[in-house]
Amino acid sequence: MNTQLKVAIAGLGTVGAGTYRVLQEHGELLTERCGHSLVVSAVSARDRKRDRGINLQNVPWFDDPVQMAAEAEVDVVVELIGGADGVAKEICDTAIQHGRHVVTANKAMLAHHGIPLARMAEERGVVLAYEAAVAGGIPIIKALREGLAGNHLKRVYGILNGTSNFILTEMRRSGREFEAVLEEAQKLGYAEADPSFDVDGVDTAHKLAILAAVAFGCEIDFDGVYTEGIRHVSALDIGYAEELGYRIKLLGTVRPTEDGLEQRVHPCMVPLSAPIAYVEGVDNAIVADGDFVESAMFEGRGAGAGPTASAIVADLVDIARGTRLPTFSVPARHLARILSAPMDRHWGAYYLRLMLVDRPGVIADVAAILRDEKVSMESMLQRQRSPGSTVPVVITTHETSESAMRHALERIDRLDTVVESPRMIRIETLGGRT
Amino acid sequence: MNTQLKVAIAGLGTVGAGTYRVLQEHGELLTERCGHSLVVSAVSARDRKRDRGINLQNVPWFDDPVQMAAEAEVDVVVELIGGADGVAKEICDTAIQHGRHVVTANKAMLAHHGIPLARMAEERGVVLAYEAAVAGGIPIIKALREGLAGNHLKRVYGILNGTSNFILTEMRRSGREFEAVLEEAQKLGYAEADPSFDVDGVDTAHKLAILAAVAFGCEIDFDGVYTEGIRHVSALDIGYAEELGYRIKLLGTVRPTEDGLEQRVHPCMVPLSAPIAYVEGVDNAIVADGDFVESAMFEGRGAGAGPTASAIVADLVDIARGTRLPTFSVPARHLARILSAPMDRHWGAYYLRLMLVDRPGVIADVAAILRDEKVSMESMLQRQRSPGSTVPVVITTHETSESAMRHALERIDRLDTVVESPRMIRIETLGGRT
Repeated sequence: MNTQLKVAIAGLGTVGAGTYRVLQEHGELLTERCGHSLVVSAVSARDRKRDRGINLQNVPWFDDPVQMAAEAEVDVVVELIGGADGVAKEICDTAIQHGRHVVTANKAMLAHHGIPLARMAEERGVVLAYEAAVAGGIPIIKALREGLAGNHLKRVYGILNGTSNFILTEMRRSGREFEAVLEEAQKLGYAEADPSFDVDGVDTAHKLAILAAVAFGCEIDFDGVYTEGIRHVSALDIGYAEELGYRIKLLGTVRPTEDGLEQRVHPCMVPLSAPIAYVEGVDNAIVADGDFVESAMFEGRGAGAGPTASAIVADLVDIARGTRLPTFSVPARHLARILSAPMDRHWGAYYLRLMLVDRPGVIADVAAILRDEKVSMESMLQRQRSPGSTVPVVITTHETSESAMRHALERIDRLDTVVESPRMIRIETLGGRT
Repeated sequence: MNTQLKVAIAGLGTVGAGTYRVLQEHGELLTERCGHSLVVSAVSARDRKRDRGINLQNVPWFDDPVQMAAEAEVDVVVELIGGADGVAKEICDTAIQHGRHVVTANKAMLAHHGIPLARMAEERGVVLAYEAAVAGGIPIIKALREGLAGNHLKRVYGILNGTSNFILTEMRRSGREFEAVLEEAQKLGYAEADPSFDVDGVDTAHKLAILAAVAFGCEIDFDGVYTEGIRHVSALDIGYAEELGYRIKLLGTVRPTEDGLEQRVHPCMVPLSAPIAYVEGVDNAIVADGDFVESAMFEGRGAGAGPTASAIVADLVDIARGTRLPTFSVPARHLARILSAPMDRHWGAYYLRLMLVDRPGVIADVAAILRDEKVSMESMLQRQRSPGSTVPVVITTHETSESAMRHALERIDRLDTVVESPRMIRIETLGGRT
């Protein structure tokens, strides 16, 4: 018994071509593993003539991917065009309406329309699979939805953007500032000409919103994700982090709190005792803390043709093997309404760096403000002395509320001995290895 | 529609009681995730009266677990008694013959009887699931069989024994020798009174043999696993490893070579550029190198009631959700016959530590032997000087064959300037983070 699973690919960029290559090169292996052969039976892309290093001669070509989703004789449509709305969304809608499974790497679309798409797919009895949308080659959706299904998760957090992690890693290794390293990342092809999606945390927020739904069985609320990028992280802060036993990472974190589901993306001081502190360069990693599993970390390549294609083909293998699961851990119609916790209710420790005029009494002024706002200092560090001119002063706090910290920062910023706006980086309390 | 999946648990030690607790405490959560409630409908253990901190009053009790596997009205039997043969095997045979699914954490049984059990289960149309048998809470079987199914894997390696990793970690941190740290591990409950299964690599070899079948779609050949433990690792070697940019880890490694499937368990010098070098304490971790995914690492707790129960319940959730997959990546009747590569064909780099009489010419003698055996030296280190008495000399080599290295070591050992038998630790070439 060797039947076929017929696949259409919409979008033949590096990931689309990579997916095509996996299916071609591993035909026999995949047939053995699935009991079905996976056959590309239709493709659609913008430019038919472009050389993609793959032989498409015998594959039906569609100029219009939406038409392909409607008319091609396929079981699955792989959507690799991207963008939250527009043609990508139309392809998925059309494929599902025509009773075809959908596999997509489109995190923006899922962050904005994941729930209605999942509902539609489940009503129609087809699969909506998206392993490739979060953390590239790392099978994290499968791990959360299946591998850790026995747990009530307490927190899920991760390094979900390789560009930002590469920049932070290089800043630490070279001591250079953000702008210089960004330029290098752009030359190396690790950052886009317009890097804002990556370095401003938007890409991480898309992925986090999806992870939240899988991990906590709730609807997606992308607008509820507090998002802050890495542009304001300076070489000075990275140096102090090392000195204090931390590394600075851009983390996406989701956890249930009394005030609702906390979803936040921002640079974090991560203790060196935590495994994720060592995840460097373009790698991604996700940690899941559960009530029985304790803590599990999943690390690998977060992007690139090969890793992303690996995830897409894993979804196709699941479909071919007949695995049929709820899109997000529980059936879409049973997903909990999400209540996102406001960021000012966040509770945690903080790192502050102030540029102060070095004269007696200035630290006392800062300390008084923190006391007034009920923020308890854990440490204070003034390495340099330079009477009369500006020196950096670093303060770490015990756990306090974000709103108290924000009030304190506003007041500190108004002191005339404070020369630049204070820099604040949240300290993340994470479990370490035993 | 809320039907039940009825579960029998054979063995109520910490893991069995932990599994019972997950099913009790997460009843609602699991029902939501599976669409079925998971109900413990039979239990069997040695001592009915023992207090396990769980309420078994309304659960039918069987004194004989084999009888339970045959007669209890259940869909799944969870085997947690352990041991390669005997009652554990009988329970599984009986359950499968009676058309019941089996979930087990029994790595020894699978390493020895996994293939015939899988064949029987697949013929009978039931699931044989064993996520808990390898690396506790880490969903590595799922990752290899499903998440990375699009890849031809090039190598899978891991830290699969928490006891050994704890001992090596503590030796490094404290500078103490193996025996002292083992004693501490025993006091802490991390090592058994008879630690040989853990520290001699047998436990790692069991798990590796199972991983080999999943990763490479071949039969299991436990006897083909080269196995060497950590008793001979000394504090001195751990110190030199640090100096040379390595950490010593007990790795299980499997990879296809021209000579067959190389399966080996032994202490390795792991470069500090490799993520697995940072996996410390009782944690386990597995790295899979694939042709498309590049490299993915999975880290977490390798043992303990909670993590192991988490894996068992994940298997139950899969069964309840109707997921039906080949036991080891491909149907058992299609698994390739395994040809295990003999260890003397291993090709790699080596670390040697010799205790030599410190006098002119002794290193030349060693160098001449290595040259004769065509082993190329990469570095030589003699830190101490102590003319006339014994000093450690450390040599690292370029890649060479295990047989050449063994011949050289035999000859070196016969030199009368060599005071102790040479210590050899294999250097593992691993990809790093970008």
